[in-house]
Amino acid sequence: MGKLYVIGIGPGGLDQMSIKAKEVLEKVQVVVGYIKYIDMVKPLIRDKEIYSNGMKGEEARCIEALKLSEDKDVAVISTGDSGIYGMAGLILELKENNHDVEVIPGITASSAAGSVLGAPLMHDNCNISLSDLMTDYELIKKRIKLAAEGDFIISLYNPKSKGRPDYLKGAIEIIKEFRDDSTPIGIVKNALRDGQEAYLTTIGEFTDEKVDMMSIVIIGNSQSYIKDGFFITPRGYKLEQKK
Amino acid sequence: MGKLYVIGIGPGGLDQMSIKAKEVLEKVQVVVGYIKYIDMVKPLIRDKEIYSNGMKGEEARCIEALKLSEDKDVAVISTGDSGIYGMAGLILELKENNHDVEVIPGITASSAAGSVLGAPLMHDNCNISLSDLMTDYELIKKRIKLAAEGDFIISLYNPKSKGRPDYLKGAIEIIKEFRDDSTPIGIVKNALRDGQEAYLTTIGEFTDEKVDMMSIVIIGNSQSYIKDGFFITPRGYKLEQKK
Repeated sequence: MGKLYVIGIGPGGLDQMSIKAKEVLEKVQVVVGYIKYIDMVKPLIRDKEIYSNGMKGEEARCIEALKLSEDKDVAVISTGDSGIYGMAGLILELKENNHDVEVIPGITASSAAGSVLGAPLMHDNCNISLSDLMTDYELIKKRIKLAAEGDFIISLYNPKSKGRPDYLKGAIEIIKEFRDDSTPIGIVKNALRDGQEAYLTTIGEFTDEKVDMMSIVIIGNSQSYIKDGFFITPRGYKLEQKK
Repeated sequence: MGKLYVIGIGPGGLDQMSIKAKEVLEKVQVVVGYIKYIDMVKPLIRDKEIYSNGMKGEEARCIEALKLSEDKDVAVISTGDSGIYGMAGLILELKENNHDVEVIPGITASSAAGSVLGAPLMHDNCNISLSDLMTDYELIKKRIKLAAEGDFIISLYNPKSKGRPDYLKGAIEIIKEFRDDSTPIGIVKNALRDGQEAYLTTIGEFTDEKVDMMSIVIIGNSQSYIKDGFFITPRGYKLEQKK
């Protein structure tokens, strides 16, 4: 009987993975994942059995991983944190009594993007995916409105794809009703991995042409500001020293 | 001229740190942090200069770190992600033009706690701190209500302290208005570090006696459920295979 590890590899750069995630990846016999994620960890898994398939093959991939783990030690990999829009949920939904599963977390994409921009996530914050593949668009819009009304910092995952070119603009329009035009927005593409690009703008100046599926978009709360090229949300310290 | 790294060491166990965070910690000359966090990384920094002080000494600590970084390479450490309720914001607020600062993210406490419980954070989720040291209690309650109304999974940081024994019970009362009694709640104390304890209950059965300041409390969304001792929030896949 083997064991199944559901691993969040973090943003993608090998040095952003946890030490535990790396140790487990090096130890298992089989690695299962979406082909692009397999490529990201290639240097660590050259001698391993690989099971990979394309996007939208998640259920088949998880069933195969569970089956393989009956005889071997297997790692299923997700980017970011395996527990936030990753594979941990589906694995546990499909798991049967005879399977031994451990979830190994990673640095989620909003944390990675935040670190590139400065410190945008320093106060109460939320993660919302704009993908409507499995979530009704009305519910997505409702969540954006309530998060904006609650003055949360908002990180948008899967912000834009060909099938829904206008959702991101729509989201920003909703948030605009609750924020000043000067509120910072950060866009980070491929945060902390090859091809990283970062842009800092404001709600008033926002356009979406730099954004794609590999981006995270972070919208500040009412206290957020930009200083020396950094996106900062104050935690709320009453500073003795003048800013 | 030295450089200042603001490092998120993750939940606390040394193997949950990113490889980059470990490399930088081993490389710098000075490490600055709250004494309990310094203790967590002690094996990595035995030969280093340490600057430490107690809780609530954050501003003095950051000013000292920035000053020290004018001559030496310095790491300021936070647990979890340095950018989520950590030290990154205060450092950037206090930074002057001559300082060179890099933020290195870590696994935030909700991701760590989530991995211990199963996969509670699989859909849109938010982090809310119940600490009222720097946030008005009315705003905290407003955010809890809106997050509950939006059917977000809610992770509560700093859920309980002696000075505010009833905030957590109050938060659960607010959330209860929007969720069934069967909604899972997970409590994880010292997630992924020495002294870890985890409890799974429901909104209807919830009591707060297991919760302290070192805990994270996660409340599911309307779709969350418990299976074989795991707290699962479905991502929304329409599964071919029967559960």
